[in-house]
Amino acid sequence: MSELRRDPISGRWVIIAPDRGSRPQDYESSSVNVNSKKDSCPFCEGNESETPPEVYAERAEGLPADGPGWTVRVVSNKYPALQIEGDLDPSSSGIYHSMRGIGAHEVLIESPRHDDELATLSDDARTGVFRAARERILDLTGDRRFRYIQVFKNRGFEAGATLDHGHSQLIATPTVPRRLDEALAGFAIHERANGACVLCQIVKQERDEGSRILFESSEFVVFQPFAARFPFETWVVPTRHAAAFEDASDELLADFSRVLGRALRAFRNVLEDPPYNFVLHTAPINEPGPRPLFHWKLEVMPKLSRVAGFEWGTGFYINAVSPEDAAARLRPAL
Amino acid sequence: MSELRRDPISGRWVIIAPDRGSRPQDYESSSVNVNSKKDSCPFCEGNESETPPEVYAERAEGLPADGPGWTVRVVSNKYPALQIEGDLDPSSSGIYHSMRGIGAHEVLIESPRHDDELATLSDDARTGVFRAARERILDLTGDRRFRYIQVFKNRGFEAGATLDHGHSQLIATPTVPRRLDEALAGFAIHERANGACVLCQIVKQERDEGSRILFESSEFVVFQPFAARFPFETWVVPTRHAAAFEDASDELLADFSRVLGRALRAFRNVLEDPPYNFVLHTAPINEPGPRPLFHWKLEVMPKLSRVAGFEWGTGFYINAVSPEDAAARLRPAL
Repeated sequence: MSELRRDPISGRWVIIAPDRGSRPQDYESSSVNVNSKKDSCPFCEGNESETPPEVYAERAEGLPADGPGWTVRVVSNKYPALQIEGDLDPSSSGIYHSMRGIGAHEVLIESPRHDDELATLSDDARTGVFRAARERILDLTGDRRFRYIQVFKNRGFEAGATLDHGHSQLIATPTVPRRLDEALAGFAIHERANGACVLCQIVKQERDEGSRILFESSEFVVFQPFAARFPFETWVVPTRHAAAFEDASDELLADFSRVLGRALRAFRNVLEDPPYNFVLHTAPINEPGPRPLFHWKLEVMPKLSRVAGFEWGTGFYINAVSPEDAAARLRPAL
Repeated sequence: MSELRRDPISGRWVIIAPDRGSRPQDYESSSVNVNSKKDSCPFCEGNESETPPEVYAERAEGLPADGPGWTVRVVSNKYPALQIEGDLDPSSSGIYHSMRGIGAHEVLIESPRHDDELATLSDDARTGVFRAARERILDLTGDRRFRYIQVFKNRGFEAGATLDHGHSQLIATPTVPRRLDEALAGFAIHERANGACVLCQIVKQERDEGSRILFESSEFVVFQPFAARFPFETWVVPTRHAAAFEDASDELLADFSRVLGRALRAFRNVLEDPPYNFVLHTAPINEPGPRPLFHWKLEVMPKLSRVAGFEWGTGFYINAVSPEDAAARLRPAL
């Protein structure tokens, strides 16, 4: 059973998940072979029995669960960082606070085929992946223990992947994570000072300046953020104010999925198929008071540099490629 | 010229340092060979002309600067993230704030010999490294533009090193980094609530419980923190309250250096010479008001796991080894 522990100085929570230690790559520095053999891949069509039972899937009507015939499939993570059963049981000992590691940890298998990947899936298939994410968020929001749901993707070994069959993940947490708390505070401070949503204002200024914009669609703008932490960090932002990803209509999801595909293919072309992470920043769920101001976005971070002591010590990032240069390099590939 | 930019949502600053792009490994995902050839190593004795001029060194009296005969040597980083000359010139454009990338970025060369490393240096030689750090902090504090000095070490490719000759680094920044701000807030909140230093109370509770302690010396306690972010994360903390590393006496530095060597050698034995980072957390400098409550420490982080999308998205860390287990595994090697 994992445990959530709070650092008394910074207030940050960590998940102590020793069960995951059964995967030696999680703490051993020896090199790891990312699974590239189709015959032993638990995510491939035909191998459904090798995963926990599915919690969501899209397949032709009439076909049974946990068998072939699906286009997207969501299962619980076999090595979950947080477990779904039980109560939080917050406890303290002196100045230390902890609670049981309650949450959900699910895998979104993006395609039945081993070699497909999110960048080159059809727009319809990619839309299915994000429809699955939306449906899982809506379902998990019904569990009042959860306060935030993080959808994310690790592609490639350097980005933290342990399986190379295309997949994304989601983790539902019983506390609002600090990065979200910081963002919520930023939205609130800006609203008090300027009477407007900070991300709406960023979108407006980016459109006015243009130098960091990759492209726009009817509903989204894709750009390199002004204070990018990483080379080629890219944000996909809905141009109409919207707090939560899971409120997106089917039409909005379809446009989002087209736009993301276009951006990911530009990375492949210019950066030679880089490892990358994406993280979906959306509003917290099950807030006790009125819903706070928020504006959702997807952050895509190609993994081209290593994070080192200075970044760990300060939270300051050093980025060797200006976002304006990155935009200029990516634009011709769009 | 690099530039500091502020993210309008989170308030975090980043350093956009395109000059460093002349080192392709900083943003290319291709594999990098860490320099392991002594004859071309700019940090080896005899190759002093290949570095910028030294700003500090310990060598036999009468020998000239920037020549052989030294035991520890500090030079400006040849590819600095921040430059020493100039004014900050803060500017804003709409909602974006930036300033010029003013600061200091120095390299502490730990030994004249290529294959020496911090863990196995003599205690006297290791003390020289931290004496150099103390003297450089004291000197740079005289520059009123600087608000914080981060001393850190990247050892091994996975930990961000680009040269394998043993070295640490320091970066002086013109703003107090967010991780320090968070820590200062944590100290202040705890003091208001409990009338005591939170790290003094952590030290007391760790000694009472014992399960995370590796060992103690006359002046330091070495333990795995309760809410460790990384497997085998280790803190070295002075047991007497002290805000700033640079106030350490020669005697305290000697004990610190002995203690750190013992901890690093335990890592080598148990974790097979892992890549690692350390970061020195010390009080900000040149504070305008009264000095805030702080208690310095060194955080050592073996690099055994990869940081992935969940951590980037949330600031939550998943640690697969409990600090109690880590302490139990390290203790026999001490």
